[in-house]
Amino acid sequence: MADHSSTALRGALLVTQDDERKVFRGDVLLRDGTIEQVAPAIKGKADHELDAHRYLIAPGFVNTHTHIANALLKGTADDRGFFQFLETMFAVDAKRTEEDIEAGALLGAAEMLLGGTTGFLDMYYGEDAVARACERIGIRGFLGWVVLDPEITTQKGVPVENAAHFITRWKKHERVSPLVSLQGVYACKDDTWLKAKELAEREKVLLHYHLSETRGEVQENEKKRGKRPPEWLDSLGFLGRHQVAAHGVWLTTREIELLARKGVAVAHCPSSNMKLASGGGGICPVTELRAAGATVAMATDSSSSNNGLSMLREMHLAALAHKQQRHDPESLPAPVVLDMATRDAAKALGRERDLGQLAPGFKADLVLYDLSHPSLLPTRVENAVSNLVYSAQDDAVHTVYVQGEKVVEARRLLKLDWEKEAPNIERIASALLHPASLG
Amino acid sequence: MADHSSTALRGALLVTQDDERKVFRGDVLLRDGTIEQVAPAIKGKADHELDAHRYLIAPGFVNTHTHIANALLKGTADDRGFFQFLETMFAVDAKRTEEDIEAGALLGAAEMLLGGTTGFLDMYYGEDAVARACERIGIRGFLGWVVLDPEITTQKGVPVENAAHFITRWKKHERVSPLVSLQGVYACKDDTWLKAKELAEREKVLLHYHLSETRGEVQENEKKRGKRPPEWLDSLGFLGRHQVAAHGVWLTTREIELLARKGVAVAHCPSSNMKLASGGGGICPVTELRAAGATVAMATDSSSSNNGLSMLREMHLAALAHKQQRHDPESLPAPVVLDMATRDAAKALGRERDLGQLAPGFKADLVLYDLSHPSLLPTRVENAVSNLVYSAQDDAVHTVYVQGEKVVEARRLLKLDWEKEAPNIERIASALLHPASLG
Repeated sequence: MADHSSTALRGALLVTQDDERKVFRGDVLLRDGTIEQVAPAIKGKADHELDAHRYLIAPGFVNTHTHIANALLKGTADDRGFFQFLETMFAVDAKRTEEDIEAGALLGAAEMLLGGTTGFLDMYYGEDAVARACERIGIRGFLGWVVLDPEITTQKGVPVENAAHFITRWKKHERVSPLVSLQGVYACKDDTWLKAKELAEREKVLLHYHLSETRGEVQENEKKRGKRPPEWLDSLGFLGRHQVAAHGVWLTTREIELLARKGVAVAHCPSSNMKLASGGGGICPVTELRAAGATVAMATDSSSSNNGLSMLREMHLAALAHKQQRHDPESLPAPVVLDMATRDAAKALGRERDLGQLAPGFKADLVLYDLSHPSLLPTRVENAVSNLVYSAQDDAVHTVYVQGEKVVEARRLLKLDWEKEAPNIERIASALLHPASLG
Repeated sequence: MADHSSTALRGALLVTQDDERKVFRGDVLLRDGTIEQVAPAIKGKADHELDAHRYLIAPGFVNTHTHIANALLKGTADDRGFFQFLETMFAVDAKRTEEDIEAGALLGAAEMLLGGTTGFLDMYYGEDAVARACERIGIRGFLGWVVLDPEITTQKGVPVENAAHFITRWKKHERVSPLVSLQGVYACKDDTWLKAKELAEREKVLLHYHLSETRGEVQENEKKRGKRPPEWLDSLGFLGRHQVAAHGVWLTTREIELLARKGVAVAHCPSSNMKLASGGGGICPVTELRAAGATVAMATDSSSSNNGLSMLREMHLAALAHKQQRHDPESLPAPVVLDMATRDAAKALGRERDLGQLAPGFKADLVLYDLSHPSLLPTRVENAVSNLVYSAQDDAVHTVYVQGEKVVEARRLLKLDWEKEAPNIERIASALLHPASLG
C-alpha cells in the first residue's frame, strides 16, 4: 500500500479550499500520500504524470455523521415518524452479525467513494467489521464504537469496555481512527457520558454523539432531568473540545452560545432531519452556530434515514433548505456549504491541519471531477464552487485518491471487484431483511 | 429511426406505475416503439432478447417544467433574490443565438436522459433549435414557444405569431410536440393571455405558464389588477383544461379549488422555489391540490435556478421538503412522489393514455436501472419505489429507451458522440458567458 513514488496532476481546475479559497488552473504534486505542492505550474517530472485539463480537482468530502452499515437497510423504514423508525432499526440492529456489518460498510463506502467522499465519521457497534471494510476499499474511517447504558444495550458485554477494546485494536492504523461515540441522552445516563469522556481523554480520541435531534428527545430530558440536553451535559461537566454533536436541530440561542464556547462541533444532517420531520418547522441553526464561532460540518446520516450517502446531494439540499427556512436566497451560499463539507468537516474531527484542503502538507485525499460531465458543463473559475454545490452529480466523480492511493478511476473501485462483491452483499442483505426477520 | 423489430427484456424488477402500481419480477415486450406486453413471463422469442435480471425497469420520468437551453447557464446567478436572478437571465436571454440555444438543449437533454428522464416540457424562445436537439439526441420534447407582451419582448417579431409559426413547423413530428407557453402575469397583459389561448385551442395544443411563483408577483398583480393571478386569469376566461401552470407556490385555498375545478395541472419545482426563496415559508400545496382533484407533477425548472435537471434528486427533495414543512414524516410518501414524476406528469400533458406507465399500449419510454449500483443495492419488490425516490443516483441509470429506440446504454448516449460534442458546447458557453457579455 505504501507508495513512495510521486504523481503530478497537471493543468486541472483546482478548487483548493485553502485559507484563501483559491480557485485556479494549475498542478498538484503528490508524494508519499501527501500533497507536496499546489501551483500554477510545478517544475520537474514526477514518477507519474497525468494531463488533468479535463478535470476539476477538489479535496475529498468528509462526511461527519453516518452509520455506514445501514447502507444495507435503505428503503426499510420510510415515511414514518422518528420513534417508529427507531423501533424498526433497533429490531434489525439486535440481530446483526459482523459479516453483514462488513457488507453494509463496503456498500456504504463504495457509494461514498464513488460520490467523492474520502472520509467519514461513523457511529455503530461491531466497528471492527467497519474498520476492515475501510482497509479493504481504501476509504478513511473515523470509527466510533457506540456506548449506551449497559442495561439497555443489545451488545454483548459492557459497551464502554467494548469501545475501549476497539480503540486498542485499531489505534495504530493509518486510515482508521478509532473513537468513542454515544447514542444520546435518551439512551445514556450521567455515568455513561462520564465514562465515555474519561475513555476518550485517556486515549486522546474524539467523542461523537447524537444531540437534540428531535423535539421528543428534548422534552423528555427536560421532564426527566429538568434540563434540555446540552445544558444537562454541561452540568455533568461533559461538554468540551474534540467532540462532534450530530443534528443539533432543537437548540436555543443559549445552547448555541454554550456549544460554541465549549468548542463542540455540530454535524448538520438535513436529509435525515427533514425526512423524519425531526427538524419539522426547525432546522439546525447553522448560520447562528457559525456566527457564534462553532464549527458546523455536513453529514448525510445513514442510508436508513436519508436514504443515501451522497455529500453532493446533501450540499444541494442544505443550501436550499436554509434559504427556504429563512426566506432568504442569500442564506448558506455555495462557498459556505463547500467549506462545511471539506475544511470545516476536517476541523470538526480535529484534522484541520492535514485534511479537507488541497494544500501542501495535507493528506492526498482528493477527487477528480470530469468537467465534460453534463452536470458540470460549463465550469470555469467563476462558477466552480457553485457548480460543485448546486449542480454536480455523483456521476461526475471520475478518480479518487485517498492518502495518495488511487481508489477509484473512471468510476470503478480499484481495490475491490464490485461485480464479485455486489451479489455477495445482495445475498447478505436478503437474509438480514427477510420479512420474517423484520419482526 | 423507425424500428419494427421486437425486443424482450426478461426477468427485470418492474415498477410499472400502472393503475394498480404493480411491482414484480417479469418481462417487457417492445414493438414498433410501443410496449406490447408486460407480464411475469412472456412466451415466444423476440427479435432482440435481453436478460434483464440485473435491472429495475420503470417508465422514464417526464419533467413538466424547464427552460432546457439554460443548461449552459448553471452557476451564473446563484445565492441572490428572484428579481436580481431574472435580471441576469434576461440579460443573457437577449443575446442568445440559435446555435447556443441548441447547444444548451443538447447539454440539458444529455443530463436528463442520463438521469432517466425521457420527456420534458420546455418554455423558451428559439424552440426550433431545441426541437432539433431533441431529434438529434432522441428525447421527447413538449416545446412551448414563450409568448409575452410584444412591447417588452426581446424576440424578433410578435411572440404569439412566432409561437404559431413554430407550431406549424413542428406539429407533424413524433418526438416533438409543439405548444404555447406564456411568461406569466408580470409579462403578459389580458390580450396576450387570450390570444395565446385562442392559438392553443385552434391548434389543439397545450398551454404552459408560470403562475404564482413569488410573493412579489402575487402582490403586484393584486395592486395592478385588483386580483390575485389565478383569479384574474379566471376572470378573463383563460383557465381551463390542457394547461400546465408551473410553480403554484402562493395559492390560497380558494385558488386551489379553482385550479382543480378548471382542470389546470400544476408543475411543482421545489429546488428552484427553495433556492430562490420564492417558496420561502411557503411551498406548493401539493397535498391540498391533490385532495382537491388537481393533477400535480414533478419538475426541475431550469439549470440556472436548480441548478440541475435530475428528476431523481428532485423527487428526494420534494418528499423531504413537504415532510419538513408540514412537520409530518408521512407527508408526500414515496409512491405519491413517483406518481408525480411519471403517470401524473404524463396526465398533466394530456398523455395519460400513452406515457408514464409500463403497460401495454404505452410508448416504450423506459429506463433500466442497475440493481448492483451502490445507491440501489439492495432493492427488492418491497422497497423498489422507496429506493427510486429516496436513494437512486442518476448514475444508477444504465439504459434508456425512448419510443422503443435505445438512446442510452451503459451510461453512454448512443445518438451523439459526447466526446466530440462536449468541447463544442464548452466553446459556445464560453463565448456566451464571457464576463463582458454578462453586463
